[in-house]
Amino acid sequence: MTTSREIHLKSRPVGTPVAANFEMVSVELAAPGPGEVQVRNTWMTVDPYMRGRMNDVKSYSPPFALGEAMQGGAIGEVTVSNDPSLKVGDLVQSMNGWREAFNAPAGAVQKLDTFGLPPQTFLGIAGMPGMTAWVGLLKIAALKDGDVVFVSGAAGAVGSVVVQIAKLKGHKVIGSAGGADKVAFLKSIGCDEVIDYKAEKDLTAALMKAAPTGIDVYFENVGGAHMDAALAAARPFARFALCGMISQYNATGDMYGVKNLIMAVGKSIRLQGFIVSNHFDVLPEFLKDMSGWITGGKLKWKETVDEGIENAPGAFLKLFKGENTGKMLVKLS
Amino acid sequence: MTTSREIHLKSRPVGTPVAANFEMVSVELAAPGPGEVQVRNTWMTVDPYMRGRMNDVKSYSPPFALGEAMQGGAIGEVTVSNDPSLKVGDLVQSMNGWREAFNAPAGAVQKLDTFGLPPQTFLGIAGMPGMTAWVGLLKIAALKDGDVVFVSGAAGAVGSVVVQIAKLKGHKVIGSAGGADKVAFLKSIGCDEVIDYKAEKDLTAALMKAAPTGIDVYFENVGGAHMDAALAAARPFARFALCGMISQYNATGDMYGVKNLIMAVGKSIRLQGFIVSNHFDVLPEFLKDMSGWITGGKLKWKETVDEGIENAPGAFLKLFKGENTGKMLVKLS
Repeated sequence: MTTSREIHLKSRPVGTPVAANFEMVSVELAAPGPGEVQVRNTWMTVDPYMRGRMNDVKSYSPPFALGEAMQGGAIGEVTVSNDPSLKVGDLVQSMNGWREAFNAPAGAVQKLDTFGLPPQTFLGIAGMPGMTAWVGLLKIAALKDGDVVFVSGAAGAVGSVVVQIAKLKGHKVIGSAGGADKVAFLKSIGCDEVIDYKAEKDLTAALMKAAPTGIDVYFENVGGAHMDAALAAARPFARFALCGMISQYNATGDMYGVKNLIMAVGKSIRLQGFIVSNHFDVLPEFLKDMSGWITGGKLKWKETVDEGIENAPGAFLKLFKGENTGKMLVKLS
Repeated sequence: MTTSREIHLKSRPVGTPVAANFEMVSVELAAPGPGEVQVRNTWMTVDPYMRGRMNDVKSYSPPFALGEAMQGGAIGEVTVSNDPSLKVGDLVQSMNGWREAFNAPAGAVQKLDTFGLPPQTFLGIAGMPGMTAWVGLLKIAALKDGDVVFVSGAAGAVGSVVVQIAKLKGHKVIGSAGGADKVAFLKSIGCDEVIDYKAEKDLTAALMKAAPTGIDVYFENVGGAHMDAALAAARPFARFALCGMISQYNATGDMYGVKNLIMAVGKSIRLQGFIVSNHFDVLPEFLKDMSGWITGGKLKWKETVDEGIENAPGAFLKLFKGENTGKMLVKLS
């Protein structure tokens, strides 16, 4: 028998999640059955989208069940294998995060070839957040020559990749983030203009100053006043990729009211929401681009790492306090 | 010399325009010069978009100048011609509305072949409003089989055409409008479900009831609470054509704040603003469809007609009180 500690959703958060919404539970894993493997997780990810799954609301992914382990991306090592497709020591990727170990049919995990990269990269720049950045900027916003690009949440796991892809392709990029550390990180990855939104009283004025001729692409991670500023600064035919609106995920009562949406009419702006999992058809194209950029040393990334399953809820809560720069991860073993 | 009365913008409206913002002025027209024609207008249009041109704000069309005649679509008859391309009695279309008569180079007016239709049709269903409906529904929202369609301002010049094109193509259509007359008109043109928004306390609940499985296309003419309701009722991958937001055109101070925009992320909704004048490449396709439908008796339209240039400002003001059903027109002679 193997002991695994896992994080259950104990109660549904109202507003900003708190530690008491989560519970750590020890479970004993039986030996895996025929065709199954046992995996010890080495890394798990916490991502803002998980907040939505904590509500009892039908959305693009089903709500987390109360009293059960939550799900999310994880990297682990096979410790027992009853299937010929995987052997002990193999690295695998799964959606069985939020736990130290698990049994699963061999077909329910994906063998991971890291191409020499650190494995946790596949929870970040080379994984879902990286692909979200790539799809949103290149496919949804349909970046084209000469576009001025504005990215909110620009120091995060997704935003920092958006900034760098746009810079690689020769664009002027304005990023917004909160606090001096993030501002410094954004400058270090080549962001032309950085707005510290926590230091600005008038975000629209700050954006107009950073992009005096306006913006053509907005990559939306934050929502709220950022959306109003982007609409105000948009040039005709601007394209907005709506990836997330983290400022609104914990809203209780009324959400922020976007006042400038009317500008989308006169300026022929396109706003397009998207979920990366609907775009897996472009996975080969993404991997080709991204592996080339990473091995060519053209992309930088940052990780904020907490250790131990017991600290996973706290790592998740940091996302909403803006306490991570780059990818927020939990190292499990 | 010919006397023409014309409507000048006397002062820029703050909020809802009032009669005092306009001034009727008599001018004497000289004989037209070489290559010019003199035209007596028979019809002029008033449209909601003109409100935007009354502000001193750079937009897709320049602001109206104070102390000068405003512009807008008009149909007229050539009364003097100094150019071989036009003869006395020819019907012509121009942007020289808001006046009884004018001189212009022959090339600045378009000869109108009515194909047996009433000439004023070319200010409505067969003109800019009809083309706006066609472009917005078929090109911007990219209507496809099985879509459930929601149209706000559905009894207006644009909305009533959207409703009918969607019905011609076999769709379920929900229309919103204000008051019993408009509701009756919408039922007469085949709208499946009609929401009298003035009689509803909760527009979202009314829309959910009218479209229990959700909407795939929203044709936006009204803005405000209509946008929030459409976002709430939208199915995944819904497409919104943003044509106008008449409820917000006269806002002073803060606009209505749209609270549900975050739903565009999880539902992968596309919101696309558009201006019909950027889509003249599809004019032949529009005219082919529309002439076929009109001559086939498949489209109905309604006009609200005021008479006399002195009543043009009043006709314009009716648009914002919802006092028109179908196309609002001014008959000039």
